[in-house]
Amino acid sequence: MNQFCKNLLTEWRKLNLPFADETFVVAVSGGADSLSLMLAVNELKERRKLDLRIVIAHFNHNLRAAESELDAQFVKEITNKFNFELAYGIQNPESKIQNQTGNLEQNARIARYEFLTETAQNLDAYGILTAHTLNDQAETFLLNLIRGSGLDGLSAIKPIRSLESRVLSQKSEESLSYEEKSKIRNPKSKIQLVRPLLNWAKREDTENFCRLNKIEFRHDAMNNDLAFKRVRIRKILIPLLQEFNPKIIETLAKTSELLRGSAEQLAASSRRAAENFSLEERESKVEDEIKNLSLKDLKDVFPSIRRTILREWLKDNRGNLRRLELKHIEAVEKLIFSRKSGKVVELPDGELVLKKNGKLYFQKTKVEKSQSANYNQSLGFEKPAQPHSENNG
Amino acid sequence: MNQFCKNLLTEWRKLNLPFADETFVVAVSGGADSLSLMLAVNELKERRKLDLRIVIAHFNHNLRAAESELDAQFVKEITNKFNFELAYGIQNPESKIQNQTGNLEQNARIARYEFLTETAQNLDAYGILTAHTLNDQAETFLLNLIRGSGLDGLSAIKPIRSLESRVLSQKSEESLSYEEKSKIRNPKSKIQLVRPLLNWAKREDTENFCRLNKIEFRHDAMNNDLAFKRVRIRKILIPLLQEFNPKIIETLAKTSELLRGSAEQLAASSRRAAENFSLEERESKVEDEIKNLSLKDLKDVFPSIRRTILREWLKDNRGNLRRLELKHIEAVEKLIFSRKSGKVVELPDGELVLKKNGKLYFQKTKVEKSQSANYNQSLGFEKPAQPHSENNG
Repeated sequence: MNQFCKNLLTEWRKLNLPFADETFVVAVSGGADSLSLMLAVNELKERRKLDLRIVIAHFNHNLRAAESELDAQFVKEITNKFNFELAYGIQNPESKIQNQTGNLEQNARIARYEFLTETAQNLDAYGILTAHTLNDQAETFLLNLIRGSGLDGLSAIKPIRSLESRVLSQKSEESLSYEEKSKIRNPKSKIQLVRPLLNWAKREDTENFCRLNKIEFRHDAMNNDLAFKRVRIRKILIPLLQEFNPKIIETLAKTSELLRGSAEQLAASSRRAAENFSLEERESKVEDEIKNLSLKDLKDVFPSIRRTILREWLKDNRGNLRRLELKHIEAVEKLIFSRKSGKVVELPDGELVLKKNGKLYFQKTKVEKSQSANYNQSLGFEKPAQPHSENNG
Repeated sequence: MNQFCKNLLTEWRKLNLPFADETFVVAVSGGADSLSLMLAVNELKERRKLDLRIVIAHFNHNLRAAESELDAQFVKEITNKFNFELAYGIQNPESKIQNQTGNLEQNARIARYEFLTETAQNLDAYGILTAHTLNDQAETFLLNLIRGSGLDGLSAIKPIRSLESRVLSQKSEESLSYEEKSKIRNPKSKIQLVRPLLNWAKREDTENFCRLNKIEFRHDAMNNDLAFKRVRIRKILIPLLQEFNPKIIETLAKTSELLRGSAEQLAASSRRAAENFSLEERESKVEDEIKNLSLKDLKDVFPSIRRTILREWLKDNRGNLRRLELKHIEAVEKLIFSRKSGKVVELPDGELVLKKNGKLYFQKTKVEKSQSANYNQSLGFEKPAQPHSENNG
């Protein structure tokens, strides 16, 4: 068995994925990365290492009419050749108009993941496989670094994470059907978004594996368009960094893995601390239970614990975390430490956080329609790192 | 009062430094950064904001004979002009030979900090001020990133940290006098290494403040020598990153500040967990107290907690942490997770860690002279990030 397939199998084990009796959706654009993943999955099926239902999914972004059509045609043919089922989606021109304000890349990604998730839901699939490589990891790390990130943003792409609850969280909870609600509560039904190449494959490996299989792959013209920041990072910044360290891609990918481990541990310890905190809070104040928080207690804890506490407190009061961004949490933190009393922070839906008598109070106000209209735009499937320079909440 | 002085005073408060009745050593090379610090401290003294004994310290690295002599002459004159005391040190040519194997920059830095620390010790000073700026922070961050770092390396330069115990740790503990030993145990006597410009001043600010005071500053020829990685980062990499984000220096400095906060919190929670862990260990095994660790327990904890536990365990067994590097800890971790039994990891002084019957055992062996000879080289004052790709312990 080729090393590429062996590596995929090893990673499959590490990620604790099922080997049989499940369905996976494989996102295939027609480029070398996604084709190599499809080819390797095919080989593992043929060798009876995997006994899974595999459905290829291709999404036509409909951005470059002729090119997009050729890509789609190509994927249809190759899927057919390997006897895979195909789920084919095409971007609704109306949705482009609706999302006009966001940037092109981000809107395309949102539409693509919407299609993939719907496909996986319809098939009751265990997960979606995407062919992100070490290179994608290094590029995402650098994008987030340049934009300004802390630990979470630099953790970059996760090799596996649950997807469905995020998608559903875009709908308001009231509009969910009973079945949808029960899916949120049942962790087993969550769709896993899996990147089985992320931890080991470089772009040259995927290209070589396609060549080895004598399979042509498509080149996306956008991959050479220097108007995109990611392309400039790939074509200009990374080659310069390679002059300092020839293994910079592996190095950055390893760094984001280390930081991801630290972030997970920190989140776990913050959650524990926040749980203890709110427990004490609730015991001591029966009357106005979650309505206020003591400033003194908030000042005494570590910043990330403080943020977890604030986030949980706001969630309890608001019923959800919708449209709440880091800048709002930071504004409340600023409020905690400001010397003047009687200040106020306004939250996205018009609710207020008030400081009074050494405590924080939450005040609910009517949701304004005009504000909640652009809610969809602030949510991406890949959560973008928050620019930490902003603090205008 | 000029904004530069105001910022320094604000930072002085934030760092909780004393305003009177203490001595500070200010490291001055003659460049814009250190001169601006000296000028601002002078102004704050004149305005009676600070009532401290200030001693300027200049170290002549003796690397570029004529140049170095001119630098030293310049600092002597300007120190005299402002009526400051001066401590002057010159690099011993022999020590250069002794440290031949290390790199030039690192050896120069070690010698400089040795001189500064001795000066501060002789004066019973509260701390040493060095004029690192936001630019230095961003450069250090990028150096560590390129070399390969996790959370600790990317935390980059700390605005304040205790110095003395590190310096003394270079001597073997037996060779310490009683007075020296008591200093290690008395945290009040620790010298603080303080970077009061690090969090707010850019290089252009320090140059402008010198010009405002009509003070010429010296240019270090090494600052333009592209043979140094730091210079290439400053002159080539950062300008490219500025095309992506004009505020990249502030952004990277802010990122390292955020990561430093995360690292401190993580260290605190790891220490707590490790304390609980060893407490349980010790209670359950009275006989061979610290001689062995249970593999199962080690597997169940977070990686950074596991590393803290291993480090503490090895310290207990060896008596110190000398020459123990990340790669040794990583080798022991690998041992924990390897399926085969009976494996061994060798530590720097020839001691062994053995895996047997689901436990780790420590086995002391004779220290070999030839190995401990190059001990000095592995210790820098600025702890370099460990290359995480190495795992050859």
